[in-house]
Amino acid sequence: MAPAGSAMAADMSEQPDTYARLLDATNSAHIAEVAAQIARRRPRRVTFTARGTSAYAARYGSYLAEIRLGLPAGIAAPSTVTLFGAEPGYADELVIGVSQSGRSPDLCEVVAAARRAGASTVAITNDPTSPLAAAAEFVIDLAAGVERALPATKTYTAELLALLLLIEGIRAGDGALPRAERDFLDTLPELARRTLADTTATEIAPRYRFATSLVTTGRGYGYPTAMEVAHKIMETSALPVLAYSGADLLHGPVAIVNPGVPVLLISGTGPGGAAMGEVLARLTTRNADVLAVGATDLPGTVGRLPVPEVDERYAPLLDILPLQRLTLALALVRGCDPDAPEGITKVTPTR
Amino acid sequence: MAPAGSAMAADMSEQPDTYARLLDATNSAHIAEVAAQIARRRPRRVTFTARGTSAYAARYGSYLAEIRLGLPAGIAAPSTVTLFGAEPGYADELVIGVSQSGRSPDLCEVVAAARRAGASTVAITNDPTSPLAAAAEFVIDLAAGVERALPATKTYTAELLALLLLIEGIRAGDGALPRAERDFLDTLPELARRTLADTTATEIAPRYRFATSLVTTGRGYGYPTAMEVAHKIMETSALPVLAYSGADLLHGPVAIVNPGVPVLLISGTGPGGAAMGEVLARLTTRNADVLAVGATDLPGTVGRLPVPEVDERYAPLLDILPLQRLTLALALVRGCDPDAPEGITKVTPTR
Repeated sequence: MAPAGSAMAADMSEQPDTYARLLDATNSAHIAEVAAQIARRRPRRVTFTARGTSAYAARYGSYLAEIRLGLPAGIAAPSTVTLFGAEPGYADELVIGVSQSGRSPDLCEVVAAARRAGASTVAITNDPTSPLAAAAEFVIDLAAGVERALPATKTYTAELLALLLLIEGIRAGDGALPRAERDFLDTLPELARRTLADTTATEIAPRYRFATSLVTTGRGYGYPTAMEVAHKIMETSALPVLAYSGADLLHGPVAIVNPGVPVLLISGTGPGGAAMGEVLARLTTRNADVLAVGATDLPGTVGRLPVPEVDERYAPLLDILPLQRLTLALALVRGCDPDAPEGITKVTPTR
Repeated sequence: MAPAGSAMAADMSEQPDTYARLLDATNSAHIAEVAAQIARRRPRRVTFTARGTSAYAARYGSYLAEIRLGLPAGIAAPSTVTLFGAEPGYADELVIGVSQSGRSPDLCEVVAAARRAGASTVAITNDPTSPLAAAAEFVIDLAAGVERALPATKTYTAELLALLLLIEGIRAGDGALPRAERDFLDTLPELARRTLADTTATEIAPRYRFATSLVTTGRGYGYPTAMEVAHKIMETSALPVLAYSGADLLHGPVAIVNPGVPVLLISGTGPGGAAMGEVLARLTTRNADVLAVGATDLPGTVGRLPVPEVDERYAPLLDILPLQRLTLALALVRGCDPDAPEGITKVTPTR
């Protein structure tokens, strides 16, 4: 039997190649074509439907849609459609279902209802033969290969990149990314490789061996990363981990932060990162134990997981990588098998 | 000095009167008039902006909007507007800011941006002289009186009722609620009084004296209640409490549930409640310690906080009441002062 964590480690190590594959001529041309068709229809709004890890990728997509397209965006609550039979008027909208497996019936129902209502619908999935793919007008295949471990790693980052390519393609109008953006993306696989190679996360993991809960926080583009790492640690180490936007944290939940509750803080570089300065200051007055993820050291923190300094909208594609390493190492040091956490299944069919 | 918790207890005890006040002739006529004006404009979508406790009320409003109006609805991420300067195209939308104090600058900015874009804007606030009220075209005053304790109780339930009256008024078209709905609402203050008088929650609170984390869960209309009680226990007892929709819980986080992590389950009566049966079954296989909130006993639970059996869309107005009692009693038994939890302020000005 393979050692605990070997499947997760293998999935994680493929992420630079997964990025390169989504950026290759065939896949990027397909995404550009989908983007161009959608751009011509001028959707007035973007709605995402997703659960679990894919919902954090969708959250990233909703920030991109609002900031880069200037369109209102949000994540739909599937239950209004699936349990209460609502048929929200999704005409003129772009509705994007995000799911690694493409097999949760509730997401398929939301996408099908949106398509009936006249929306443009896209499935972003690692299985182009899945029911979600069948329900949507357009399909973007993550082409990430089978994910062996239960915790999603390479499919999560592939979802982020697919959403970035789709939304930037819509922004461009004809699907073709501006030269500067394309040039940056050409460096992404190598940046991911270097970021993944850093061992800081593995070295610091034993620090959290006896933590009984953790808090993660970030703002703007950093918030999905905070939510995703919280979910990952929770499912692999069976620890309660609370994720908050920096602003929401100050609206009450900061009460649970004390020196015994470690904080992982996504510091970021742009406006979102700048807004985290106020959050860090408040955490410091509570003598919080803060580990930062970022490109530069911050006073008042106990350490930093280093990531390259990139435009804030690309940061989620890299910031999660050392946090995956931290998740894996922490599960192992706590005696858990991150490849197959007890009590969870890879496909969760909810209605 | 007043005993710990006396301010919170006083706020809570006013909730039946707060309901009655919002339902009186003057307030309900004003809300009906706002609803009628908005209904004539036929908004295509409903967007909420809110933080903390008010964001759970907004979540309730978004379920109502999707299910009762058939309009897509969601909660905006203020940071895209306030930090990144996005100006999402909110024309043709109804944008509702929900805030007890009406003083968080980010919410004011979102409402102001929406108004500039041509949206119908409503401020639901306990301070009709606040900046949020000034930013919106329409103002609904919660008229709940000053909230003395830091944890919001009477302003939360007042927000729920104001949203219900507004959205049902829009559904009616002319703001006037159907007779059956009005008849039910006339009984609401007395139902609230009876629900608050039940002592089960206070008796069971010591059971959780040494819990190190809790999980709360509900679906559909029950999900905002699960989020609100999680927030309340977290801020008053400084405990990590994780709230999940029943569906999201099964997508991974169920891993943290074991017999040592108590679960509070909002069982409900309609489709959302029915969907919780599957969740309870899964929790039972994990030997979880489940306390239900509902109108009937459920097998596999350790007890039940009793609430009246009402149509599911009214349940949030009553289900939270015994959970507020549980929150108060648990904080006291843990030696915390729920009136003024350490490290939190009543108004949190985030940007």
